[in-house]
Amino acid sequence: MNTSVNLKVAPALNATVVPISLGDRSYPIYIGENLIANPLTWQGLQKAAYALVVTNVTIAPLFAQQLKSALQPMFERVEVLSLPDGEEHKTFETLNLIFDQLLGDGADRKTTLFALGGGVIGDMTGFAAACYMRGVPFVQVATTLLAQVDSSVGGKTAINHPLGKNMIGAFYQPELVICDLNTLQTLPKRELSAGLAEIIKYGPIADMSFMGWIEEHLDALMAKDPKALAYAVKRSCEIKAGVVGADEREAGVRAILNFGHTFGHAIEAGLGFGVWLHGEAVGCGMVMAAHLSQQLGLVEHSFVERLTTLISRAGLPVVGPKLGADVYLEHMRVDKKAQNGQIRFVLIDQPGHAVLKGAEDNVVGRVIEQCCL
Amino acid sequence: MNTSVNLKVAPALNATVVPISLGDRSYPIYIGENLIANPLTWQGLQKAAYALVVTNVTIAPLFAQQLKSALQPMFERVEVLSLPDGEEHKTFETLNLIFDQLLGDGADRKTTLFALGGGVIGDMTGFAAACYMRGVPFVQVATTLLAQVDSSVGGKTAINHPLGKNMIGAFYQPELVICDLNTLQTLPKRELSAGLAEIIKYGPIADMSFMGWIEEHLDALMAKDPKALAYAVKRSCEIKAGVVGADEREAGVRAILNFGHTFGHAIEAGLGFGVWLHGEAVGCGMVMAAHLSQQLGLVEHSFVERLTTLISRAGLPVVGPKLGADVYLEHMRVDKKAQNGQIRFVLIDQPGHAVLKGAEDNVVGRVIEQCCL
Repeated sequence: MNTSVNLKVAPALNATVVPISLGDRSYPIYIGENLIANPLTWQGLQKAAYALVVTNVTIAPLFAQQLKSALQPMFERVEVLSLPDGEEHKTFETLNLIFDQLLGDGADRKTTLFALGGGVIGDMTGFAAACYMRGVPFVQVATTLLAQVDSSVGGKTAINHPLGKNMIGAFYQPELVICDLNTLQTLPKRELSAGLAEIIKYGPIADMSFMGWIEEHLDALMAKDPKALAYAVKRSCEIKAGVVGADEREAGVRAILNFGHTFGHAIEAGLGFGVWLHGEAVGCGMVMAAHLSQQLGLVEHSFVERLTTLISRAGLPVVGPKLGADVYLEHMRVDKKAQNGQIRFVLIDQPGHAVLKGAEDNVVGRVIEQCCL
Repeated sequence: MNTSVNLKVAPALNATVVPISLGDRSYPIYIGENLIANPLTWQGLQKAAYALVVTNVTIAPLFAQQLKSALQPMFERVEVLSLPDGEEHKTFETLNLIFDQLLGDGADRKTTLFALGGGVIGDMTGFAAACYMRGVPFVQVATTLLAQVDSSVGGKTAINHPLGKNMIGAFYQPELVICDLNTLQTLPKRELSAGLAEIIKYGPIADMSFMGWIEEHLDALMAKDPKALAYAVKRSCEIKAGVVGADEREAGVRAILNFGHTFGHAIEAGLGFGVWLHGEAVGCGMVMAAHLSQQLGLVEHSFVERLTTLISRAGLPVVGPKLGADVYLEHMRVDKKAQNGQIRFVLIDQPGHAVLKGAEDNVVGRVIEQCCL
């Protein structure tokens, strides 16, 4: 673990550092501009003969070359593997392309894997690093807002199975996470909105004053103002770090980070992975989970309205696809939070606080009918 | 982790217990007769809605039904998945059959996986448990001598890749390991010998007095005398536990357990996985590694002879297949111990003590030519 070394170079980089404290699996997140191309960013890593940058066909032309050049002082050989883009490729077949490249190049146990991309690339590359020779070092270079505020913290890696999202994976912590704000300038509007969904999430589950800040600064965020983005990324990472630090392997409280995800995963699986972006499904899923919270008497309608308005302003869908309640329920029963076929939802029991709770199928069904047109 | 609960039932089972101490990943090994069919064996596990017994078509007719019955008090539903038998099936495709079954049956995060079989079933089931929903409980019911004395300790799980053995895997500790000595009574002679290879291994690397005991009791072991087997399994597990406890993730000393494995893996990969049994390749690999130790001036020829005699008496090959030195070297370069293309061998520097060392290709080549006819 390179925390101490990395923390020393942060001031020279003019980067904000969010430390993730997980004992001997601790690591720092750097947030700032022009980090990828700066060799100083990588100076704290362990030198090795070989590094593999795993990215996708969309990101590769934008940042792969500058990352490769900046890594040269640390690694004798740096290769780039460019995978197809999209959630529908988060499969065993694509994962195997990483192993094929590593073994074809004779990559040893000191090999470092760099995930250059969003959540899909991060999840797959992290899982490959967890499994290759039973574990090699891994660095995440998050290029989407969603990856910077969500998958950068917590070490969840996975691939999808046709019967469920993120079903095959590992908890595996990176050595270092880089959130280079420059990468957000090239981010398509739809993906920016998807990232805002996970930022908005932190308000209802943990910090309503942050929700107030987002309401005030949403226009700046949508205009990609670097200062606003820097604060939103930092505050999101801090909140997530607090939750993950208390429950690394999701035995309890960590599940609250899944607010909106139970309904959201059903939307993604029901439509087929990749039709809606993950963040879009989470945005709409939060609206549905808020309605369910209200149905169970946990929150007022005014809170549901306030949250729905913010999600809608962020350019996210607030009405779900009409798949039928049965299809939703069937997909939600394979959710990882389910126990013995009983779906458990992350619900808001007061603004700024979440709980894990079951609900009767007919109540859930009513919410689905009400929220999906 | 169920150590405390499990330790309480051990006396009633008349089982020998070897505790594996790895902090919060500690677990006990039970060694004894008639353990599988006794519901008491399973009493310390966490109750759950679902358990999956993963086994193979050879073992299933012998022990699956008795295990399933004995598990009924602990699990509402117990299913058996019977995989094809053999190292050549330790692949992604077979691993996926486990995930298909789990997801098809709606198995949740409390699901316990039981590996009923030898090393291949243990490695694959353990890896499936490590990855399913990012980790579910796992119990190993080792039915071969090799699995009882080797893969029962240390938490190594993996599948093979066409370019290398055990290249994709995880360190993942079981909740409990059962070595039911009855299962060895049905073990084919060839597999008994394969297990003896790993038992013999512990002598040269760690305990020459144990090697002396094996020399004295080899006939009893080959006649499947339960008392002799019980002691050999116990002593092997103890030695391995000591090494693994000092270095769980193989950063250093743990590599000595790989004595004979560098040459052995090359034999397995070179002939195609499954042609020689893993233990057969390790037996012959130890002869080759002993010769290399002698070539480098680390041990006397008398030691090489003594070890070769014992391996041969155990019914194991002591002459390697003639694949050519280049083929051996090529396969050995992708060994997980290799660094930067440099092969590192586990060598004996004095009987009862091993070291990790590189060697010139021409010296290694000479040993290969000498040992492979």
